[in-house]
Amino acid sequence: MNEPSERPTTSADPATHATPAPPAPGSRRPGGRTARTRAAVRDAVLTGLAEHGYPDLTVEYVAEHSGVHKTTLYRRWGSLEGMVADALDLAGEDDWTPPDTGGLAGDLRALAREVSDGFADPAAAAAPTAFVGAAFQSPRAAEALHAFYAERFRRCEPVVERAVERGEAPPGTDAGAVVRAVSAPLFLRLFVTREPVGTAQADQAAAAALAAVEAGAFLTQRGAAAG
Amino acid sequence: MNEPSERPTTSADPATHATPAPPAPGSRRPGGRTARTRAAVRDAVLTGLAEHGYPDLTVEYVAEHSGVHKTTLYRRWGSLEGMVADALDLAGEDDWTPPDTGGLAGDLRALAREVSDGFADPAAAAAPTAFVGAAFQSPRAAEALHAFYAERFRRCEPVVERAVERGEAPPGTDAGAVVRAVSAPLFLRLFVTREPVGTAQADQAAAAALAAVEAGAFLTQRGAAAG
Repeated sequence: MNEPSERPTTSADPATHATPAPPAPGSRRPGGRTARTRAAVRDAVLTGLAEHGYPDLTVEYVAEHSGVHKTTLYRRWGSLEGMVADALDLAGEDDWTPPDTGGLAGDLRALAREVSDGFADPAAAAAPTAFVGAAFQSPRAAEALHAFYAERFRRCEPVVERAVERGEAPPGTDAGAVVRAVSAPLFLRLFVTREPVGTAQADQAAAAALAAVEAGAFLTQRGAAAG
Repeated sequence: MNEPSERPTTSADPATHATPAPPAPGSRRPGGRTARTRAAVRDAVLTGLAEHGYPDLTVEYVAEHSGVHKTTLYRRWGSLEGMVADALDLAGEDDWTPPDTGGLAGDLRALAREVSDGFADPAAAAAPTAFVGAAFQSPRAAEALHAFYAERFRRCEPVVERAVERGEAPPGTDAGAVVRAVSAPLFLRLFVTREPVGTAQADQAAAAALAAVEAGAFLTQRGAAAG
């Protein structure tokens, strides 16, 4: 993740911001045989998670769908848990950047809409949802999920930094808290309360986060001192 | 759930708002042998979920820890999934009500602190967390979780209605959206991004929701027309 320029991908999935999304067909990564094998295993893990969910995914399934021999899978990834964690690591190595609409309100709404759009299709939502579910059972998946979102939210921070520069947000606004606040009500509905999520919920989440920013609810002590 | 006065419990667990929490020891419900059996099974399910998590919980475990014979368990609950869903239903039948501090800011902060306090102790957090995880695998658990939170959030709505009456929130504020917004950033960290949650995060979530309420970010068309 320190060399993003060396790791181009072809993924432009709108769910990428929010979640690890399956790549488009044929989007194998450049980099030789090792990278191709890793991508093939990742694709098989994503397909398997979407079809069966974490507890029912098997090494046999990954071997069959990746064309990589079970012996190789165990040697390189150690376990199914390792394959799931690595698929998530790989999903986080794309070149996604947050929207830049020219204003904070538009940027936050676009971020929220990436989540609601990305989960509108149950088939597209299945693998990302299974990753979140896998983290309840697999400490390695939980670590990988934590790292994935930490990186995603870090990439979103310029949205708030630009807003501060434009005078749309008070100096010292905690960018990480703002971008988490935009996704949070949507993820609550998707992964906890199991309620529908659409553009109405996305726009409300963005509007609420914007209002809280403007009222200074996300000011940090540290940030306020620095700003 | 229509007869709360007939179903007293002794539970005063601070996590009760947010999540199904194990009852205090000895808090078996009144109501005769059937109710006692149901409560014993519920207790065994909660203990088992806390110890092993959903996929590793077994009917044998529930039988051993509840003192209820496996044959009876299968006859009355059909499956382990049914026992988990019923434990969640039972957790939702307590007499919890939201805090009433006399002001919206205090009420929202108290609600958020119930979540952060309830999850501060990993042992106390284990069963509620396992319930959320079980919903990724069990449709019946997902339905029960959905119903549990729908009822919890419904009970919180008076917090916002009182605020409207006091002039602290604009008429037409969507109470359900407000109370979900308070929990959402905390549940995001607990169940998705796996980041620590404490009183700082709770207070920030409450402050952000309050600012959004005051700015009218939670106004509904329907509500705005009615108000």
